Amino acid sequence: MSKRKIAVVEAAPPTERPGERPMERDGRPPVEAIRAAAFAQFAERGYPVVTVRDIMKACGLTQGALYNHFKSKDELLHDIIASTQAELERVCQQAVSGAGNDPRAKLAAFVRAYVVRHCRLRVEALVANREISWLDADRIGDIRRSRRAIREILVGILTEGLEKGVFDPPQVDGKRDLKAVAMALLDQWTHVSMWYGPGGRLSEEQMARLYAEMALRGVGAKA
Amino acid sequence: MSKRKIAVVEAAPPTERPGERPMERDGRPPVEAIRAAAFAQFAERGYPVVTVRDIMKACGLTQGALYNHFKSKDELLHDIIASTQAELERVCQQAVSGAGNDPRAKLAAFVRAYVVRHCRLRVEALVANREISWLDADRIGDIRRSRRAIREILVGILTEGLEKGVFDPPQVDGKRDLKAVAMALLDQWTHVSMWYGPGGRLSEEQMARLYAEMALRGVGAKA
Repeated sequence: MSKRKIAVVEAAPPTERPGERPMERDGRPPVEAIRAAAFAQFAERGYPVVTVRDIMKACGLTQGALYNHFKSKDELLHDIIASTQAELERVCQQAVSGAGNDPRAKLAAFVRAYVVRHCRLRVEALVANREISWLDADRIGDIRRSRRAIREILVGILTEGLEKGVFDPPQVDGKRDLKAVAMALLDQWTHVSMWYGPGGRLSEEQMARLYAEMALRGVGAKA
Repeated sequence: MSKRKIAVVEAAPPTERPGERPMERDGRPPVEAIRAAAFAQFAERGYPVVTVRDIMKACGLTQGALYNHFKSKDELLHDIIASTQAELERVCQQAVSGAGNDPRAKLAAFVRAYVVRHCRLRVEALVANREISWLDADRIGDIRRSRRAIREILVGILTEGLEKGVFDPPQVDGKRDLKAVAMALLDQWTHVSMWYGPGGRLSEEQMARLYAEMALRGVGAKA
């Protein structure tokens, strides 16, 4: 696999400290160390070529330590994608529920939370979006449910804004497709994770404001 | 790999016709049959688990026939991504050069060409965007160059529209980042390929008009 443009943050190598058990060496619970190493390895090299041994070597634990927490590599992939997805859903819900009653403020808060997270957690987003295809159909269901829930929050904001007369989303041949508008916005916000770098011209906060402004314009928000 | 939501168009199975050589059986040149089968197999199952044997079986040719055209599976992956990417660049250039002098018309023509192509060639787009990571760094260069060229066409249109006073792209803290605006638009247009289905509410042409309207609003196009 070619060197990726994004910087992959490797799990911190364990520091040897005499007297401590290996499972405490890097200062965080083993399950967190395993998750971080799995994200980094899957992002850098791709799920099918990474072995359980590679992951455990990267975080300085034994193979047995992984099987204490996860039955298989497949279960580990599901766990890390599902947990980052659940946290994304929580963060979006929280942003909207703290934004007051104006749909414009709700949309701006949603964009901000979503874009800042995708500027920051690029490795997690890459794995969640590129490697999800390797999950079996029965493992993918709860992740798809959460993605739909996030889209429904957004469709709800657009619907409310339309009803209150503060949004005027584009019509095509007299039809409005708010689900398509929501998908278009989410695609835009998700894929900042594939090219944004902290050394760029705009900070995470500035990216969020740029994307919020484009979104508000796109849905025809009244001034 | 889980069953993908998009329908993968399999290469047409060869029809046995006595007296014809295997390489002519499916009515198109072998190299085209190989490319179509490779796109379908890589989209459905992922590059690392597909073998040359799988691809040749899918298009009814011998393994030797592949090596007449491609040195390796890696070269085949590069060939199919590079050729679809080159065609995308050509289609975008053509759309813009046929759109007249108004930056708004150029942008609308660009969106239309890009979005219709991504609604239609979903298998090709999936492989080009998801499987590109499997290419070696030295093979990826010309594809990246073409992606940059497409982005530069778009940045050029935005710059011209700003200079002519027909566009007013968002500013953040007094700064305009037209490259970030172009990336945001391209991300939105590229990823229709991941969820659009012909059975949806909007046709390809309607999708193109929806996305063009959102883009024109987003860059602050004057009426």
